[in-house]
Amino acid sequence: MTSQTHSDQTHGAAKRPRSVAEHLAAVTDLLARLVSESRAEVVPLPDALGRALVHGFLAPLSLPPFANSQMDGYAVRSADIPDGGTDLSIMPPVPAGSRPQPLQPGTAAPIMTGAMIPANADAVVPIEKAVPDHFLTHPGGAAVTLPATAPGTFVRAAGSDIAAGEQALAAGTCLGPAQLGLLAAFGMAEVEVYREVSVLLVTTGDEVVEPGVPLPEGKIYDSNGTLLEAAMKQAGLCVRRAGISTDNPGALQSLLRTAGRDVDVIVTTGGVSKGAYEVVRQAMADQPVEFLHVAMQPGGPQGIGTFDGVPFLGFPGNPVSCLVSFEMFLRPALSALLGAPAPRLPLRARLDLKGQARQLTSPGHKHQVRRGSLQPDGTVRLEGGESSHLMHALAASNVLIQIPEGVTELDAGDEVEVWML
Amino acid sequence: MTSQTHSDQTHGAAKRPRSVAEHLAAVTDLLARLVSESRAEVVPLPDALGRALVHGFLAPLSLPPFANSQMDGYAVRSADIPDGGTDLSIMPPVPAGSRPQPLQPGTAAPIMTGAMIPANADAVVPIEKAVPDHFLTHPGGAAVTLPATAPGTFVRAAGSDIAAGEQALAAGTCLGPAQLGLLAAFGMAEVEVYREVSVLLVTTGDEVVEPGVPLPEGKIYDSNGTLLEAAMKQAGLCVRRAGISTDNPGALQSLLRTAGRDVDVIVTTGGVSKGAYEVVRQAMADQPVEFLHVAMQPGGPQGIGTFDGVPFLGFPGNPVSCLVSFEMFLRPALSALLGAPAPRLPLRARLDLKGQARQLTSPGHKHQVRRGSLQPDGTVRLEGGESSHLMHALAASNVLIQIPEGVTELDAGDEVEVWML
Repeated sequence: MTSQTHSDQTHGAAKRPRSVAEHLAAVTDLLARLVSESRAEVVPLPDALGRALVHGFLAPLSLPPFANSQMDGYAVRSADIPDGGTDLSIMPPVPAGSRPQPLQPGTAAPIMTGAMIPANADAVVPIEKAVPDHFLTHPGGAAVTLPATAPGTFVRAAGSDIAAGEQALAAGTCLGPAQLGLLAAFGMAEVEVYREVSVLLVTTGDEVVEPGVPLPEGKIYDSNGTLLEAAMKQAGLCVRRAGISTDNPGALQSLLRTAGRDVDVIVTTGGVSKGAYEVVRQAMADQPVEFLHVAMQPGGPQGIGTFDGVPFLGFPGNPVSCLVSFEMFLRPALSALLGAPAPRLPLRARLDLKGQARQLTSPGHKHQVRRGSLQPDGTVRLEGGESSHLMHALAASNVLIQIPEGVTELDAGDEVEVWML
Repeated sequence: MTSQTHSDQTHGAAKRPRSVAEHLAAVTDLLARLVSESRAEVVPLPDALGRALVHGFLAPLSLPPFANSQMDGYAVRSADIPDGGTDLSIMPPVPAGSRPQPLQPGTAAPIMTGAMIPANADAVVPIEKAVPDHFLTHPGGAAVTLPATAPGTFVRAAGSDIAAGEQALAAGTCLGPAQLGLLAAFGMAEVEVYREVSVLLVTTGDEVVEPGVPLPEGKIYDSNGTLLEAAMKQAGLCVRRAGISTDNPGALQSLLRTAGRDVDVIVTTGGVSKGAYEVVRQAMADQPVEFLHVAMQPGGPQGIGTFDGVPFLGFPGNPVSCLVSFEMFLRPALSALLGAPAPRLPLRARLDLKGQARQLTSPGHKHQVRRGSLQPDGTVRLEGGESSHLMHALAASNVLIQIPEGVTELDAGDEVEVWML
C-alpha cells in the first residue's frame, strides 16, 4: 500500500472533458502503427475468418466462369421450338463438370444444374415441363416433347454474378463466411490479411481476487479479465492474461515489463480514477501516459499513452465501464484502422419503458451508454440502471444504447441508437 | 460416372413439399440425441465462449457481495450532517479490498470506489463536493467540510445487482463475454457446457475442384466448403473438411465411412436434386435417408436421415442454397436443442428498392430467403437477385430477408423480417 497522493490531473473545472469522438480519435492515433506492410501475412482461407483484406481484390475470373444451367432439364435452341411446343431428339446428357458437344438443330440435350450450356443452345427447359417429365435411362434417339421457351431462360450467363476484373472485395473488408466463400469461388486458397493484434490484459486492485478461490471479506472476484478476454477474442484479438496486479505500482511495472514486452497493446482495468490508491496512474508516472476524463457514462476515467513504448490503454475498474471502454474506443479504433473486427452496425430502436422508469434520464454533459435488450418488434428495453457495477444486468443485454451528449430525457417510444453486441 | 437414374422421390404433384417449419422440426428431431448428460463437460471459463449452460445457475453469492462505495469520497453517517453542511473529523482511509472500522459519530472516512462501506456509515459524499476537494496526504485529525446528503447516496447495496439464490442464468444460455464475466463475478473458474458438435463436411460434384489449382474448362472452384466451414466455425461447431467427392457413389460412401466415423453430424452439399447424376442420393440408397423438397427458395431440395447411424443432412449444391440451408435448419436446430449458437435475432426492416426492381416478387407457394444489406436507417436493400449462385452478392450482404409463403409481392417501404448474419 503506497501513501496517498493527490490526483490532480483531472481536478478543477479548467479542464474540459474529452468527447467520446475525441478520445476515439486519440486511441485510433495511438494504434495507427498497426497499419503496416510488415504486419501483413498470407494465410490459408480458413485461418482468415474474422480478419480483414490488406488489399482490394479484383475478380480474377468471371462468376460463373461459363454459361450454365440453372435447372435440371433440356438444353435447347429456343428457335427450334414453335409456340405450341415440339418434339426434339434427345442427345447425350451433359453432366455438370463436362465439356459438352455443340447442340445440333432439332435436338435437346439433357443437362444438369450447373452444367455448361452447349454451344448453340440458348435456353433450358426444366425437366418438369418435358414429356416425359423424367430423364430416360437409355434415351437411344428417343424424342422429348418440349414447350416453347424464351432465349436465356434458366441460363446463368457467364459473369452474371461478377465479371473478371471488377472489384470483388474492397481493402479492409472483414472476412466472414460469405467473403471467404467468394475468394474460394475465385480459386484463392490463401489471402493476405493483417496479423492478429495481441493484447496484454491486466486487472488491478487489492480488492480483486481470482475466481475459484474462497472470497475474503471486502474482496470481489475479478470479472473484468474474463469479460474483456472474451470480448477481445470475439473481436479477433489474441489475448494474453497477466492475472491480477496488486495496488503496488512497482509490482505492476514489473508485471508489464515481463509479460508485455512483445504485445501490440497493453490494457489495464482499474486504478485510473481520482482515488487515493490509483495503481495504474502511479505505475505510469514516468511514462508518456495521460489520465483524463471522457464525457461518457460509464467509462469516464481513461488512461492513454505508451508504456516502455508499447501502446497503453487504462480502462476504469468496473466491469460495465471496461466493456463500454472496449466497445467505444479500442474495438472501433481497430475496425477503422484494420477493417477487423467488423464495425458494430448502429440500429434504431424505440424505447420500451413498460414496468420501468417513466423516463430514461441522462446527464446532458455526457454521452451515456445504457445496456438493453433489443426485441424482435424493434423496441429496446433497459436492462438495469446506469450504474457500472451491474454485471447481471449486462448479462441480460444484447445491445448498448447510445444516448448522445445534450440529451437529458427520453420517453417511451422515443427512438434511440443501439449497437448489437 | 454412373448410369442415369430416374429420381422419382420428389416427382409428381402428389407429394406436398414440406414447409420450412416442418423441415426444421425434422432436423431438430434428428439431432435431439445431442442433448445428453454424457455430452456435458466442465471447462474453464475462457473455453466456454460461445457454448451454452447445461443447467440453470443460481447466484451463489450476492452481487455486490457487500455494500460498497460508488465514488471516491467520504463515507458518512447522513444524520451527522445538517442541511447547511458541517465539518467532520477525517478518519483513516478505506481503500478498496480492506475491512474498515465502524464509523464513529462526527467523523468521515475517505473511501475509494468499490471499497466496503464501514458499519454505521450510510452514504458517500463524492470528493468533488468536499472542502478541500482532494484527499489529504496526511490528514492527521484534520476536518473536512461536507454538504448534507440523503441516506444511501452513492452506496451500492449488497445484492443490488443480484441476490444470492436468485436465478442468474437460465439453462441453455449461450455464454458470451457478459455471461462469462458474470460467472467469474460469482467466483466460478469453470462451467458445465455441452461438448462441441462435430461436423464432417463434404462437397460433392465432378464439376467442383479445390481452390489453388488451375481451373479446367467446365469446372468451378469449390466455395461451399469454405463458406460452410466458416459459418459453422462461427456457430461454434467443430468442422472436419473431407474435401470434394466425385460423382461416384461408392467413393462417397468410402469417404464418409473413413472420415465420418466419430462425428456428430455429416453434411454434404450437392447431389440431392432430381438430376441424372445425384451422387448423394445414390450413395444413400441403402441408408434410412429421405430426399424431399422444402417449400423454400433457394434450398428446396434436401436430404435427411442417418448414414451408418450418424445423423446426415444433404444440402443442395449452390453456395447460397447451402448457406441458407445451414441458417434455416441446422443452426436453429442446434440453437433450440443446445442453446448454442445463440439464435439469430429476427428484426423488422423497411424494404428499400431504390435503383432496383419496382417490386420484390416471391413465389407464393414457397418461403423465399433473399440476401440484403441492412442500413443504419432501418431500411434493407436487396443484394443480387433470387438466384442461388450469386456468391458475390452474398458477400455484400449482412442479412437474410425472410419472405413467408403466401407473399408474392412487396413494395418499397414494406416491412420485412431480416436475420442479421
